[in-house]
Amino acid sequence: VNFASDNNAGICPEVLEAIVAEAPEVDAAYGWDRASARLERVLVEVFEHDVWCLPVITGTAANSLALAATNPVWGAVSCHELAHIVVDECGAVTVAGSGLSLDPLPGEHGRLTAQTLDRRLRTRRDSGVHTPAATGLSLTQATEAGTVYRPDEVAALAAVAHERDMVVHMDGARFANAVATIGATPAELTWRAGVDVLCLGATKGGALGAEVVVGFDRRRLRDDPERLRKRMGHLLSKQRFASAQLVAWLAEGTWLRHARHANAMAASLAEALVAQGVHPIHPVEANMVWVHLESSAVERARRLGASFYVESEHDDGTQEARLVTSWATTSDEVDSLVRALSQA
Amino acid sequence: VNFASDNNAGICPEVLEAIVAEAPEVDAAYGWDRASARLERVLVEVFEHDVWCLPVITGTAANSLALAATNPVWGAVSCHELAHIVVDECGAVTVAGSGLSLDPLPGEHGRLTAQTLDRRLRTRRDSGVHTPAATGLSLTQATEAGTVYRPDEVAALAAVAHERDMVVHMDGARFANAVATIGATPAELTWRAGVDVLCLGATKGGALGAEVVVGFDRRRLRDDPERLRKRMGHLLSKQRFASAQLVAWLAEGTWLRHARHANAMAASLAEALVAQGVHPIHPVEANMVWVHLESSAVERARRLGASFYVESEHDDGTQEARLVTSWATTSDEVDSLVRALSQA
Amino acid sequence: VNFASDNNAGICPEVLEAIVAEAPEVDAAYGWDRASARLERVLVEVFEHDVWCLPVITGTAANSLALAATNPVWGAVSCHELAHIVVDECGAVTVAGSGLSLDPLPGEHGRLTAQTLDRRLRTRRDSGVHTPAATGLSLTQATEAGTVYRPDEVAALAAVAHERDMVVHMDGARFANAVATIGATPAELTWRAGVDVLCLGATKGGALGAEVVVGFDRRRLRDDPERLRKRMGHLLSKQRFASAQLVAWLAEGTWLRHARHANAMAASLAEALVAQGVHPIHPVEANMVWVHLESSAVERARRLGASFYVESEHDDGTQEARLVTSWATTSDEVDSLVRALSQA
Amino acid sequence: VNFASDNNAGICPEVLEAIVAEAPEVDAAYGWDRASARLERVLVEVFEHDVWCLPVITGTAANSLALAATNPVWGAVSCHELAHIVVDECGAVTVAGSGLSLDPLPGEHGRLTAQTLDRRLRTRRDSGVHTPAATGLSLTQATEAGTVYRPDEVAALAAVAHERDMVVHMDGARFANAVATIGATPAELTWRAGVDVLCLGATKGGALGAEVVVGFDRRRLRDDPERLRKRMGHLLSKQRFASAQLVAWLAEGTWLRHARHANAMAASLAEALVAQGVHPIHPVEANMVWVHLESSAVERARRLGASFYVESEHDDGTQEARLVTSWATTSDEVDSLVRALSQA
Repeated sequence: VNFASDNNAGICPEVLEAIVAEAPEVDAAYGWDRASARLERVLVEVFEHDVWCLPVITGTAANSLALAATNPVWGAVSCHELAHIVVDECGAVTVAGSGLSLDPLPGEHGRLTAQTLDRRLRTRRDSGVHTPAATGLSLTQATEAGTVYRPDEVAALAAVAHERDMVVHMDGARFANAVATIGATPAELTWRAGVDVLCLGATKGGALGAEVVVGFDRRRLRDDPERLRKRMGHLLSKQRFASAQLVAWLAEGTWLRHARHANAMAASLAEALVAQGVHPIHPVEANMVWVHLESSAVERARRLGASFYVESEHDDGTQEARLVTSWATTSDEVDSLVRALSQA
Repeated sequence: VNFASDNNAGICPEVLEAIVAEAPEVDAAYGWDRASARLERVLVEVFEHDVWCLPVITGTAANSLALAATNPVWGAVSCHELAHIVVDECGAVTVAGSGLSLDPLPGEHGRLTAQTLDRRLRTRRDSGVHTPAATGLSLTQATEAGTVYRPDEVAALAAVAHERDMVVHMDGARFANAVATIGATPAELTWRAGVDVLCLGATKGGALGAEVVVGFDRRRLRDDPERLRKRMGHLLSKQRFASAQLVAWLAEGTWLRHARHANAMAASLAEALVAQGVHPIHPVEANMVWVHLESSAVERARRLGASFYVESEHDDGTQEARLVTSWATTSDEVDSLVRALSQA
Repeated sequence: VNFASDNNAGICPEVLEAIVAEAPEVDAAYGWDRASARLERVLVEVFEHDVWCLPVITGTAANSLALAATNPVWGAVSCHELAHIVVDECGAVTVAGSGLSLDPLPGEHGRLTAQTLDRRLRTRRDSGVHTPAATGLSLTQATEAGTVYRPDEVAALAAVAHERDMVVHMDGARFANAVATIGATPAELTWRAGVDVLCLGATKGGALGAEVVVGFDRRRLRDDPERLRKRMGHLLSKQRFASAQLVAWLAEGTWLRHARHANAMAASLAEALVAQGVHPIHPVEANMVWVHLESSAVERARRLGASFYVESEHDDGTQEARLVTSWATTSDEVDSLVRALSQA
Repeated sequence: VNFASDNNAGICPEVLEAIVAEAPEVDAAYGWDRASARLERVLVEVFEHDVWCLPVITGTAANSLALAATNPVWGAVSCHELAHIVVDECGAVTVAGSGLSLDPLPGEHGRLTAQTLDRRLRTRRDSGVHTPAATGLSLTQATEAGTVYRPDEVAALAAVAHERDMVVHMDGARFANAVATIGATPAELTWRAGVDVLCLGATKGGALGAEVVVGFDRRRLRDDPERLRKRMGHLLSKQRFASAQLVAWLAEGTWLRHARHANAMAASLAEALVAQGVHPIHPVEANMVWVHLESSAVERARRLGASFYVESEHDDGTQEARLVTSWATTSDEVDSLVRALSQA
């Protein structure tokens, strides 16, 4: 049973069907195709707002492109110290952003607070041209800890940023899971709360590989995102297959249905673990359960075929394990994992 | 009828089948999967040589990564002045290569000659640390003009480069078409002729989107290609779908079969045009036919539904048109295009 | 009276004399001159070790070049969160280092401890190619807080870094002040304690503008520092004037004499302030005194002609003021400043 | 006798005097000083136009900064194929410009013509986002061949560029020599002829090291040049010494007096060589004489103590020699060189 990551799952049936349907077609390359045009219309509907949008193939590309297009090369982006852009993108934001810096901040359960951000921005050393300028804020929704920001939390953070004319970016690799949990509309969680540009990820939610940068305000652009995408090698010749995936995934609520399922599996996993006396480290609000496990338990579970990451080891011999569910996770797999861990 | 580019075609049946077969599977992300392991074995067989290999999703990414990993940041790569890396990648090599320069050279029919390269390297200004150092050679196979390099031509060029310890890169977005034309083995056209690193493209040959950087000599690496790929945003989480595409495409000669078909369609198109008195500008050696057309002919053909690019316009009112065939081009389409052009 | 920065002072007589002597000479450009050759010999003597050395004109250039030459582009450099490379170089390390990241750490009085560094390196998220690799450590000597590292403190920090094969860099913009305070030899404070590359600054110590990157171990070089310097625009045509400054400054202990004077002025300033009941925030170990001042005191002192920076303002109405002395500071100026502040 | 480069000469008396006068002063760092303020006023007078200006220490820094501040990162700068930015700056423009490309063009005697530029811009491949955009033109004045552009030639070139909204940059490392030759005003050779940004070099003209980027139109700025300068490590702490050099050099026509002298020495050298039957390769219009010399003549002249560069060697055994004069060259030195060459 595989709880290593939602990106270990395959392609969900709806997205696969769209790829199969598009496969025999002939259409223009580089985004001048019917599916890409349709994607823009779908995004306008889903977000109830005009958008500019650029599909890419990885979350790292999406984040890098979004931040590079909206910040100056001498800027700095405030973000959580465990954000994907800090610890999991090997400096990609800095490469795409031609030197753009990150300013990592602490925060419980993977979340930044408006207070932390405000204090940091008021007290960070700022010597004019000598210091990277605070030009951006990046929020991860759902967070790397499997928690979510409520619309008012996003709004409070965005207000602090906008007061200083900083752009507000949302890394939404698991945006679907956040929407599914909170029950707010995509609009309420983004532009209505002050988000200027969203990286909406479908890969973890069932696509072969498809992410899309969704911008809500062209005035936030400091450079041409199409040029930047091209020179990052991220303009797909057969972009229509990325667009078709996104269209199928967003259509008829498929994305939220899959996200609700993944969230429910995580909730049920957490419940079963609590029943065994294993309490989650972070609130389980999306499709992840973080727990402390004895090293021996980890080993035995793995011998029994369970696959998952341990993020760090503690001096008391326990490990911090991350258990991730997906659109493809079954109740049987949850049961198997719980059994494997409890036997241990 | 679409002769705009081989990347306007869809997914060939063999590759689609592989995607469908892989879709329901669960496997590790970031290349630690079965399909990626199998890809390496397949490449070893196809090229009859040990390789290091990194799948990516675009040709621009492949070229950028290959050159960045094998040249110093203060290097310069000699290449044809119409190479994709010069005119069609918006500076991507320079971005991935952290300042790596290109040194474009002229050459008839899209081909460089060993003489041109040698003369350039002997006479270019070189003031030590003041001048970008000549560290790489990039050849495009098949070329942007639809011609090919024979093994002895590659070997002569590579010899000039290696004499100066320059790395030899091959942009093989249409490598399949070149192999199909020449009838040499993949090995004879690459490492046996002195190629150090090949970008093998499957996208134009029938894949959804899959290219792979194939290295024949780890000693040519100046930096860690896996780190560079990651920070370019080109490490795919579900890399197995890229690998599965490449495996299916390379298996049982599918790639060469499709390439032979595309080449045959181009040859038949050229023959029919010659019969009409329209002579190709460049030898038709792969899946492209370049012709001069009257502007009025271009307009009429387009009104009749023909899609193709014109690259440049001349003072005499003619245009330089590029007609590209693919695995999906049919004889009927060739006939339709010829009719559309001849009526004009 | 000017206590804003040691770089507000002019050129000390010894350095000026060297410039005047060199002025009418004709010699080779770009470092192939007699003064540059002599500089290397002087550095070998001063540091009692073979060195490679590259003069540049600013401390930012020196730090950027030293770190870029010794770290991979996907690396990260651990350093104090108030280090010059973090807050005062506008991302220069990242630009020169083609994406190189910084990992800022806290530490009392501007100093890192081996414990803090070790804990950080053991617990920071490290997901292989996904995370910038910890490849460098940068120490500032004397620190931005005006404190110094003792040889055993440097050695303990370097040991933690070397255990992980990280390069150890020292930002020595005020290295002279540190040597003058500690009384250890330059060798004891650098290579004997594990420093691999030092940026030795003369500008704050009396030069017109001259810094030199001094490397103690060529095996730590990952790229050619001369090529990197050139492409940063930091190879001086008349480099001999930078070299001549450095030679004159280092000769016959001039650098240490000036540093001792500056340190003594700071000590005497601190003593006088303590007598007034104003206690330094950080130990006064070099040529800086940090104090909390009432906003009204700051204003009045400025009206009386005193020039100095306040770095931050506190909620209680006090300000954190930085008072810097130099080779040119006189006792009279110290007295004037103390009077100006005490009247307030 | 040294004819290797004008940067082998020392500091001219007027500039040295300014450094000596500034040396004991205390003033603000980073350009907030009296000399820097005065420099701006002097430039306004010299160019009879409002300017923005940024002093730096090398010509490479000036060119890189000027082009980075006025072009997009995905732009390309048209320039002569032997321009300093192409062959003598090791990719610095690309580094400072975060990937900015160069598009080198041929031209007799180191000069571009409006026809060549226009033809290139009309015929170069331009596939929208796929191709680096033609965004800048860089002219070298005086050229690397020692020739100059007349105001109408500059205007014709600038007109071609401005028609396409390209920025016009002038590399004026030897601008003084051009002004001295042509007898036009600095204004006539720059903004009146369409130059948007000039890099004015004093180093080759007698300074220790001082160049200044002079902008004539803030609307041409695409990024903040002060931020870019800082992150290149080119913001000088004691900038006042660069400014003081430039002020002294520009004051009372010193710069033109020295340039006229250097030009006259070159003219007299050329005349003497012609009398010996050695004819210059390029018109001698500034402070350089290019000649073909037998290899044996080069060797003998060097044995007699003459220092100069040979740029390339020909199959017929001759070498292309560059003889450069400066403000410091004397008639005796010219005579010595001519004798040394004629004996050979």
